[in-house]
Amino acid sequence: MQTTTPDETDVQRRELEERVAADPAAFRVLTGDRPTGPLHLGHYFGTLANRVRLQRAGVELFVLVADYQVLTDRDVADHLDEHVEGLVADYLAAGVDPSAATVFRHSAVPALNQLMLPFLSLVSIAELRRNPTVKDEISASRQTSVSGLMFTYPVHQAADILFCKANLVPVGRDQLPHQEITRTIARRFNERYGPVFPVPDALLSDAPLLLGTDGRKMGKSRGNAVALSATADETARLIRRAVTDDDRHIAYAPETRPGVSNLVLIAALCQGRDPHEVAGEIGSGGAAALKRTVTEAVNEFLRPLRARRAELAADRAYLRGVLADGDARANAMADRTLAEVREAMSGPGRGGR
Amino acid sequence: MQTTTPDETDVQRRELEERVAADPAAFRVLTGDRPTGPLHLGHYFGTLANRVRLQRAGVELFVLVADYQVLTDRDVADHLDEHVEGLVADYLAAGVDPSAATVFRHSAVPALNQLMLPFLSLVSIAELRRNPTVKDEISASRQTSVSGLMFTYPVHQAADILFCKANLVPVGRDQLPHQEITRTIARRFNERYGPVFPVPDALLSDAPLLLGTDGRKMGKSRGNAVALSATADETARLIRRAVTDDDRHIAYAPETRPGVSNLVLIAALCQGRDPHEVAGEIGSGGAAALKRTVTEAVNEFLRPLRARRAELAADRAYLRGVLADGDARANAMADRTLAEVREAMSGPGRGGR
Repeated sequence: MQTTTPDETDVQRRELEERVAADPAAFRVLTGDRPTGPLHLGHYFGTLANRVRLQRAGVELFVLVADYQVLTDRDVADHLDEHVEGLVADYLAAGVDPSAATVFRHSAVPALNQLMLPFLSLVSIAELRRNPTVKDEISASRQTSVSGLMFTYPVHQAADILFCKANLVPVGRDQLPHQEITRTIARRFNERYGPVFPVPDALLSDAPLLLGTDGRKMGKSRGNAVALSATADETARLIRRAVTDDDRHIAYAPETRPGVSNLVLIAALCQGRDPHEVAGEIGSGGAAALKRTVTEAVNEFLRPLRARRAELAADRAYLRGVLADGDARANAMADRTLAEVREAMSGPGRGGR
Repeated sequence: MQTTTPDETDVQRRELEERVAADPAAFRVLTGDRPTGPLHLGHYFGTLANRVRLQRAGVELFVLVADYQVLTDRDVADHLDEHVEGLVADYLAAGVDPSAATVFRHSAVPALNQLMLPFLSLVSIAELRRNPTVKDEISASRQTSVSGLMFTYPVHQAADILFCKANLVPVGRDQLPHQEITRTIARRFNERYGPVFPVPDALLSDAPLLLGTDGRKMGKSRGNAVALSATADETARLIRRAVTDDDRHIAYAPETRPGVSNLVLIAALCQGRDPHEVAGEIGSGGAAALKRTVTEAVNEFLRPLRARRAELAADRAYLRGVLADGDARANAMADRTLAEVREAMSGPGRGGR
């Protein structure tokens, strides 16, 4: 469990970023998404932009489309192929380069799940119970509501990360405990059977948190987020309905004026400017002027991405080809890693008991 | 959880046996062993004879060599290939027909582990805690000694059984709770996503429990069991050392004279006779006469099996071919089942929420 303070994690992040900048080719990132619908601005500034930045710096990307995880959600399952192809279109439109990145579906690499057997043997249920989600459910004394899948989720995540020997995993703060289980598993496996896995570093996100246009958490299914694939008109309509306040003077003050500040922040991110500067320019123009600025900034920013995305979405055969390619690469990787794991576990060169 | 009394299970077993006898082709058995060393008489009379009987009656056999499970045990892992081939030789020598049975290695069918994701989602941790092994460990307040693998073991077993749609699983009484989890998972999957899996019947063993020659539990690694592959001399030496008692009059009284009665039982099983009759014939001949009888009965009984086994063991290429064949069949089966599972989980024809 990470026990560092925010300041320490800032220092750690900077140090890690320096190591990555010094030798990007030494790093492989595993990241991914559940194919539950179109990606939106929150995803873009929260994680997608960071992936593209890392890839352009020379880091190898593995991008997992977590399609097997969502099969238990039937609303999603009904449109799975559509969601998966949409996700790939979003990735490529945002700048992920499929000739260097491996974009693959979890369901297409069934063998990676074999890592669950040794990995589960390396963690105790006491350790798995420390997962905050599980802890919350159990302390509400609803053990029956914690499924075996929820309970073992960090170990599945370890299999997803370690099958491809990723050593850099971008995470949000809430995912640090999960990530720590992956590190524990890698460390214990290596100690017991010999050095097979990297002990991956968690690259903590420093992206600002964007709210939805209704002031709540931005969510794919809440109708409160600007999808990357939305049209300029859809974007304008959504921002026009955004929650603001009665003060005509626009300022960037996230604590006291969350709605207005969130819109200012979106415009600032899209324009690559400081939010205070953006707010200052609007001055006493009120919510209407703010919304015009935001709409224009978002549509301007997303225009080239949307144009690329439209081209990509029109060529489903190409998108499927990218996935087939990624699936094949991921499968080859899984086979190699499983062979090494079996060799390490059964070989005579293993370390002491 | 099975809550029936022994009498009820007797009735259930007989009813199940009648259903199997009436339509053997409607049944598929999944059974198997961990490749931890040579099979012995306890295995033969406990399970192997029963598998051969079922196969000869027309039931399809899937025989799982649980090689991945034993990788965490390094003493075994060092000789894994040897153990695996030895196991296959034991099976075939005992009468398993590889042209009809699928003998396969768990490690060779990595895709079957993908079933863990949906299956884990169908059971709660409250249900998994009811596993007697886990319960014992937890009540000794040693949560740290319960690994994630031990905790999820019944779900791994469900994947092993259901990937090949086995509907008949021979079990010992201690495995009934595990087996009930498999039934629960199959039932819930079918209710939620549509009818994919059989709900397997547990065929409770009625084999008598054999003790080792030292009076303790018979165990592969305890040097107290007659291996099927042992020579006649090794068998004689082992039985000569067997624990008996001072009463020269030989009788079959398991409660009061466990050592003597165990030897009587072994002879009786090998000769297909009643143990009281065998004991009566020896009468007041004492332990020496009993041991001569047992040695002769065992060696006589195992002679043809051992001859076949020696031939098989000399042809390692053939044994490896049998496994390669079984692995290929099991893989094809896993691929079919996974395709059906995905179809059921994402298809529009699913049942109500």
